[in-house]
Amino acid sequence: MDLYSFFNSSASYRVRIALALKEVPFDYIPVNIRTGVHREAQYVERINASASVPALVDGELALGQSLAIIDYLDAHYPEPRLVPVGTMQRARVLELSYLIACDIHPVNNMRILKYLDTVLHVRPDQKEAWYKHWIDEGMSAVERMLAQHRDGPWCFGDTPTLADCCLVPQMANAQRMGCEIGRYPLSLAVYRHAMAHPAFDAAQPNRQPDFVGT
Amino acid sequence: MDLYSFFNSSASYRVRIALALKEVPFDYIPVNIRTGVHREAQYVERINASASVPALVDGELALGQSLAIIDYLDAHYPEPRLVPVGTMQRARVLELSYLIACDIHPVNNMRILKYLDTVLHVRPDQKEAWYKHWIDEGMSAVERMLAQHRDGPWCFGDTPTLADCCLVPQMANAQRMGCEIGRYPLSLAVYRHAMAHPAFDAAQPNRQPDFVGT
Repeated sequence: MDLYSFFNSSASYRVRIALALKEVPFDYIPVNIRTGVHREAQYVERINASASVPALVDGELALGQSLAIIDYLDAHYPEPRLVPVGTMQRARVLELSYLIACDIHPVNNMRILKYLDTVLHVRPDQKEAWYKHWIDEGMSAVERMLAQHRDGPWCFGDTPTLADCCLVPQMANAQRMGCEIGRYPLSLAVYRHAMAHPAFDAAQPNRQPDFVGT
Repeated sequence: MDLYSFFNSSASYRVRIALALKEVPFDYIPVNIRTGVHREAQYVERINASASVPALVDGELALGQSLAIIDYLDAHYPEPRLVPVGTMQRARVLELSYLIACDIHPVNNMRILKYLDTVLHVRPDQKEAWYKHWIDEGMSAVERMLAQHRDGPWCFGDTPTLADCCLVPQMANAQRMGCEIGRYPLSLAVYRHAMAHPAFDAAQPNRQPDFVGT
């Protein structure tokens, strides 16, 4: 099984956590999204039509989109289960995961910040305000969800789920970009709990073979 | 069952299609996101922590995030099934759905366009270029996925799936915003096929009780 990944990509980080939790062996194939490898014809036509990272290649299957990959892994390597089967817990896990994957991460990822810079020529302080605005909008919503439904050390329950696979990279990213993550105390408690777990530690950007500092 | 919806919201439109396909009766509760009803305390604290539309209230459950809602509906009203159970078909359906829900829709929705306008003060032509740029990036990826895996009149297979629930509102939105959707012939074929189906027709913005023109 091959994982196409970039060390600093939050979406890649989600899948690395899932693979580590499930203890699935894989080969790490670095894709440097800073130099545009994810947009090269060979990659887009054969590995990942989304022209992004991550992508998983398992035999005949080449699959992009981190949450689709984790769903696939959950079917093939069900222990530990990351998307719960029970309806109510499942709904809460998916709701928080989609909040991060659809409402927070996409508006602050590399391609958007680059467009603000190189096409719209916004000032650095405007770009920083953009980033922090969407983090604050989204993380405030995460806090509301956790305040209503959290009942253990993880986002939901006594074991890590897809919600934790999404929250941890988002918190790491916010911290790296200079956001005050102490404003989100419930998320911070989950983040600290997770980072003490060996699977979450192994999936960190600075543990990856293509890590090159900032 | 109550659906909190705004007629012009793509994410609401996805859930309306799912409800119509499954023929689930529901009460339509309009939430005017143009006047900020989705950000009022009562809504955010009791109905939808995401401070967005849609939200579904079914007995004790109040749930936001369109894809979490459709997953819940698929569990409770399995006919027709919108996320296939078989692994390969399921992976393709989720991959395309997430491409739209995570890579395309979030960067062009109302709150982003409003921020470009009111905070960054970009010119109208710059805002239009932003919209069209991300549509073209994303829809080109949709076309690659359909070219590789489409094998019927819908995105994947002989029946509508979650992928169609995501693609149709995205195409309608792109058309409304003046994009040349003929550039995406495979998506256009799916769109035309879908719009001839009564469930997709019933879910259209102009069929909703809160429709007020443009």
